[in-house]
Amino acid sequence: MLVNCVAYKRGQRVADIPISEIRAQLSDPSCFVWVALKDPELAEVERLQEEFNLHELAVEDASRGHQRPKIEEYGASLFVVLHMIETQGDELRTGEVAIFVGPQYVVSVRRETSHGFSEVRRRCEDEPELLQHGPAYVLYALMDTVVDRYFPVIDSLTHEIEQIETRIFASNTTRAQVEALYNFKQRLMVVDHAIGPLLEVTSKLHGGRVPPICAGLHDYFRDVYDHLQRLKQATDQLRDMVATALSVNLSLITLQENEVTKRLAAYAALVAVPTMIAGLYGMNFRHMPELDWRWGYPLSLGIMAAIDVYLVYRFRKAKWL
Amino acid sequence: MLVNCVAYKRGQRVADIPISEIRAQLSDPSCFVWVALKDPELAEVERLQEEFNLHELAVEDASRGHQRPKIEEYGASLFVVLHMIETQGDELRTGEVAIFVGPQYVVSVRRETSHGFSEVRRRCEDEPELLQHGPAYVLYALMDTVVDRYFPVIDSLTHEIEQIETRIFASNTTRAQVEALYNFKQRLMVVDHAIGPLLEVTSKLHGGRVPPICAGLHDYFRDVYDHLQRLKQATDQLRDMVATALSVNLSLITLQENEVTKRLAAYAALVAVPTMIAGLYGMNFRHMPELDWRWGYPLSLGIMAAIDVYLVYRFRKAKWL
Amino acid sequence: MLVNCVAYKRGQRVADIPISEIRAQLSDPSCFVWVALKDPELAEVERLQEEFNLHELAVEDASRGHQRPKIEEYGASLFVVLHMIETQGDELRTGEVAIFVGPQYVVSVRRETSHGFSEVRRRCEDEPELLQHGPAYVLYALMDTVVDRYFPVIDSLTHEIEQIETRIFASNTTRAQVEALYNFKQRLMVVDHAIGPLLEVTSKLHGGRVPPICAGLHDYFRDVYDHLQRLKQATDQLRDMVATALSVNLSLITLQENEVTKRLAAYAALVAVPTMIAGLYGMNFRHMPELDWRWGYPLSLGIMAAIDVYLVYRFRKAKWL
Amino acid sequence: MLVNCVAYKRGQRVADIPISEIRAQLSDPSCFVWVALKDPELAEVERLQEEFNLHELAVEDASRGHQRPKIEEYGASLFVVLHMIETQGDELRTGEVAIFVGPQYVVSVRRETSHGFSEVRRRCEDEPELLQHGPAYVLYALMDTVVDRYFPVIDSLTHEIEQIETRIFASNTTRAQVEALYNFKQRLMVVDHAIGPLLEVTSKLHGGRVPPICAGLHDYFRDVYDHLQRLKQATDQLRDMVATALSVNLSLITLQENEVTKRLAAYAALVAVPTMIAGLYGMNFRHMPELDWRWGYPLSLGIMAAIDVYLVYRFRKAKWL
Amino acid sequence: MLVNCVAYKRGQRVADIPISEIRAQLSDPSCFVWVALKDPELAEVERLQEEFNLHELAVEDASRGHQRPKIEEYGASLFVVLHMIETQGDELRTGEVAIFVGPQYVVSVRRETSHGFSEVRRRCEDEPELLQHGPAYVLYALMDTVVDRYFPVIDSLTHEIEQIETRIFASNTTRAQVEALYNFKQRLMVVDHAIGPLLEVTSKLHGGRVPPICAGLHDYFRDVYDHLQRLKQATDQLRDMVATALSVNLSLITLQENEVTKRLAAYAALVAVPTMIAGLYGMNFRHMPELDWRWGYPLSLGIMAAIDVYLVYRFRKAKWL
Repeated sequence: MLVNCVAYKRGQRVADIPISEIRAQLSDPSCFVWVALKDPELAEVERLQEEFNLHELAVEDASRGHQRPKIEEYGASLFVVLHMIETQGDELRTGEVAIFVGPQYVVSVRRETSHGFSEVRRRCEDEPELLQHGPAYVLYALMDTVVDRYFPVIDSLTHEIEQIETRIFASNTTRAQVEALYNFKQRLMVVDHAIGPLLEVTSKLHGGRVPPICAGLHDYFRDVYDHLQRLKQATDQLRDMVATALSVNLSLITLQENEVTKRLAAYAALVAVPTMIAGLYGMNFRHMPELDWRWGYPLSLGIMAAIDVYLVYRFRKAKWL
Repeated sequence: MLVNCVAYKRGQRVADIPISEIRAQLSDPSCFVWVALKDPELAEVERLQEEFNLHELAVEDASRGHQRPKIEEYGASLFVVLHMIETQGDELRTGEVAIFVGPQYVVSVRRETSHGFSEVRRRCEDEPELLQHGPAYVLYALMDTVVDRYFPVIDSLTHEIEQIETRIFASNTTRAQVEALYNFKQRLMVVDHAIGPLLEVTSKLHGGRVPPICAGLHDYFRDVYDHLQRLKQATDQLRDMVATALSVNLSLITLQENEVTKRLAAYAALVAVPTMIAGLYGMNFRHMPELDWRWGYPLSLGIMAAIDVYLVYRFRKAKWL
Repeated sequence: MLVNCVAYKRGQRVADIPISEIRAQLSDPSCFVWVALKDPELAEVERLQEEFNLHELAVEDASRGHQRPKIEEYGASLFVVLHMIETQGDELRTGEVAIFVGPQYVVSVRRETSHGFSEVRRRCEDEPELLQHGPAYVLYALMDTVVDRYFPVIDSLTHEIEQIETRIFASNTTRAQVEALYNFKQRLMVVDHAIGPLLEVTSKLHGGRVPPICAGLHDYFRDVYDHLQRLKQATDQLRDMVATALSVNLSLITLQENEVTKRLAAYAALVAVPTMIAGLYGMNFRHMPELDWRWGYPLSLGIMAAIDVYLVYRFRKAKWL
Repeated sequence: MLVNCVAYKRGQRVADIPISEIRAQLSDPSCFVWVALKDPELAEVERLQEEFNLHELAVEDASRGHQRPKIEEYGASLFVVLHMIETQGDELRTGEVAIFVGPQYVVSVRRETSHGFSEVRRRCEDEPELLQHGPAYVLYALMDTVVDRYFPVIDSLTHEIEQIETRIFASNTTRAQVEALYNFKQRLMVVDHAIGPLLEVTSKLHGGRVPPICAGLHDYFRDVYDHLQRLKQATDQLRDMVATALSVNLSLITLQENEVTKRLAAYAALVAVPTMIAGLYGMNFRHMPELDWRWGYPLSLGIMAAIDVYLVYRFRKAKWL
Repeated sequence: MLVNCVAYKRGQRVADIPISEIRAQLSDPSCFVWVALKDPELAEVERLQEEFNLHELAVEDASRGHQRPKIEEYGASLFVVLHMIETQGDELRTGEVAIFVGPQYVVSVRRETSHGFSEVRRRCEDEPELLQHGPAYVLYALMDTVVDRYFPVIDSLTHEIEQIETRIFASNTTRAQVEALYNFKQRLMVVDHAIGPLLEVTSKLHGGRVPPICAGLHDYFRDVYDHLQRLKQATDQLRDMVATALSVNLSLITLQENEVTKRLAAYAALVAVPTMIAGLYGMNFRHMPELDWRWGYPLSLGIMAAIDVYLVYRFRKAKWL
């Protein structure tokens, strides 16, 4: 679906144009066109491929989806794939944006994501002096937005691991807690696989040799890179936390078993000792003087109770009960 | 076994030729020959070695098999080994393709695999404008096909780990589940050892210094490299998942033991307490007024039952039963 | 909040100046201005941005805070972010210092930290021959101070892990000890994330290509780098220790369970054997000669006691009790 | 012990010569001498040091033994140390070969190994056109042989881990199996420490800057390197397998404990329930109608049996028995 | 404390000189002075700083101690810090040697170590042809000695882990064994932190760009590097062994618990079954023919004994007893 298609000249919006007028606009070298597509049909992408002369392999990737985050140079143009992560209930959903950047065009193709980029377009149009940098600035603005959207995801993951952690230490571990840790780890991997490859490739947009189209925006792309490094550090920290939590959890579960065993043993003792004493007085020896005592029975019950009270005291002291 | 041997000129199929006519074809520098062998005898490979002047060490590797995936330059020609992975029931079988690529020839030698490359040949012949790039394009087409065949293998592994995972959390862990995780890990290693080294060497076919024969196909080999990176990322993720699953599984098994212990303790209590009470009234004291009560026996049974009912209630509440 | 703003000339303090006079001072190229801010308002930073022509992205980072430690070049000036770690009761709090360094200015902006840098200023003013190096020397003095403040943090962590370790081996493991290890690991991560990235970027200030502003202070920045390496090594060692401690702890917990099981079994035996013997003499066989013996009852008690004494002796010897 | 000392000219064996004639042979620059020593005395090595002007530090290493695999350049000559691994019963023994290679000599010194290199000499003499490459070809032949001898060691390790693995899943884990895994790991480390460093240094003999003496044998040393990479990959896989096996094994042991606990509990129940019922009818209440029934006793036994049969059925169904 | 201060000329000892004469000696460019200090006062170091014009930061490091192993260039001179490890009872103590090397001087400052370097001085003076290389050769001799002193430490660690390992497999694991493993790991870290950083920096003294003062001693420093690599490999192996030992140990402890549980269960059965039978004959049914049998009592005892004998036989066979 075509979201919009706008021509810009020296950083100023010229007009919303239909696709058929793109070619006319491009004849003016100070103009560029910014096209946004959403879950497009193959035909739509092929139409743009013709207009902008996009590379076949890049178009194939953009049409198929399910790419990893990457930045590829095709001659003077760039092909960028970014992952967008959205929280949906308990799950993380991965959407994709493919961006074609050439000297006179930007084409963004997003898939399986509800978040659009209209705010990016608005922000860009509000700063015409920056938008004058051309398509590469639009690329920066898109990347910056996508990367900034990772922060709340990381924040909610951080919040979640802290909650799991509190629960682990607050009470006995249950299957639900182990499952929560496992699910957390899964979601962390989703985020990590969006950030990791992007970090790697973004380093090619600043410092050292840079694609010519991005020259002059060095500081901006380094800023994106810096954000990605912060995100990477955060996910590394989360991974470390979940690993430690898993390991600590196993210790706690074993400890818990230990405590259960001790508690059981204590209760068993409280039952076993009276049983033994009752057994003694259940013996059929002819000569057992206690049996004939007037207060033999209450006395024996009293002894049992006394022993149990003493045992409870000892077990309490040893923290077995 | 010779599968086929075809001469091409400017991207067009000229003719199926016998091996003896190869030399004649090669005299025309715009021609190249594409030979496909399957589990060949040593003699067959040696015959081709003579015709194409293949390097002794490469021929040795292709004849012996059991190589690791690799790309080696011998002067102006390349020697490539790829692994092919096929699912056979519960196991993964590794086949091998050795490919010799020279300025005027491609020789593919496949071993211990049922999948052939006839579709590759067909696809290449359908796009003569691409096949015009010569033997290096055939190499690309072969590599692309082999690499694309890894995706369903990875998909079925992903499906499998998800099933194992569901089973682990759904019910108590059994030896069968532990064994499933172990076997999964084994199969993952097979895939990883096909993809890992190939990823490493494919990076030499694009970017930086490239073997002269591959020049001009830079974007195509980068595409293969990109697919391999996606596969690598997928196997890394699977490895991470199986490691976490193993670790979580141990926690669950220990937790399970915990639960079993608690359940046992609860049942033991239900038996031990009545036994103790019965023991009390089994004592032979002369003066035990309850023994003479009319309703002493039913009352004692009632007390036992009441205590057990209360215990069941308490254990249920504490989730021990 | 503006802490102070001082002009220096050839390493000598000239005067405390208001912000409005900065421009006048800067007209003398042998002068530089050192401004210190604490938790500033956006307006204050923007005022300085104008005066010193600071880069927009750097100002944004300094205003927002929550950056990772980094060193960025913007043309001839540097933007540095450092983390400051303070112990607050049981927790580690991370503050931040952002430092802008240009040919004629140093601006330090600290946030969420109680430790100031007045001692740094004093030390610098005491050594005018060193301060003559200009703003880069101030940067060195600030970095050196921040880095040196990590050492006591590491020392207290080292002390703490040694205490945990002593407790682990001295007595049975408790939940509190596991939680202590976990919390220790968390705090270690905070320190690690301050030191790790800083180490990485500090290496760019000495050896190889160095920002022009830092030239001539090569040995000083290498010294900072060397301190950071010692800190890194210390945190690596601590991480290794906590991992080993966690793993050893699990072994000890399991061992402990073992010992509890044995102790319980021993006590159970001491109760079960007399119960069994009492059961024997509770049988109602008509012909049980012992029952009629005069000393049958005390004898049976004696036998029970003797068996228990023997068992205690055996269990003691086997270290079960 | 001098094994042999032979002079070669243009790839052809000239003669077995005594050490005293070496100097005479070397005067002809188209000649080279190949000396093989076995567990030599210091004097023997020093004699050769004089003849060939070997570097003092290299001679020291060759005399002392216990070096790590390495390749060192001393001016125009090379000093190579390789490990040889031999299976001796259940253990792996590490022998050493030190090789000095100069423009006109090869000296191999082997220690603590029974395998000699006579076959290498024979193979070399059978291919005079290759031996013409001179001492570097001999080095290649020796390295190739040593490296090829690692393959059966790896194969037997692979076979062994598969057997351990089968035993682990087939039956309950015993101390013997844990010990087998541990010993396996030890042996794997021996192999790894032979292959790892060698792989690293062999890469210096092909590609990029190569010691002048090895120039022209690029493809051959790359072949050795390739074999080493296969070996490395195999040992990596084995290491991964043993780590997974250790981890899986712990799960299985815990699971096994679980099963033992359940089985015990089931048997305990079969005994405890009849004991409780017997306890009931052991009570001394005056009014217990069942006690007077004609069939009271057999009925009570029947009830006990019935309950136990039911319990066995339930336990069987729950797989506890 | 000044140990000694000797002037050398062309590799020959000239004379023991007081510090005040150093300046005189240095006026002869073919002379150099070798000063050895032990736990010096600040004043002593400052005196030498003046004489040799040592760099302030290096002097600071040497005076304070607690540096990590490192090699730093200050103009034409080098500053080297090495760790010395000494076994003291069960602990490893780390001493430090700081070495200043300039064109005409070597100053060694050792701290907290009892081992001196008089033997190094003797060895150097015995080989004047090597000592002619000047201060850099002294540096080599000192480094070589320090590094060689690590070998016995590693050997004793290797011996120790083998003993621990034997104990682990020989008998049941105790807290003492777990503690031994933990302490071993601690000591290994001490060694590792001496060797690791030194290995890293020593690589800068041979191959590639080398500090001018070390030029010509390339082969000697490579030898030191090679020794360090062997040590590193040894510590890596030890680390791997202790990790595997910890992991195996946990399996053994769990296995041990398993065995304890089984043994207990067996003994419990031997007591529970007779208790149950005794319970049966303790029932008060009027019609229990066995009770009236002449041999009822001995028969019942015989049955109990027979069942226990059978159980013992079964448990022995199943290796539970």
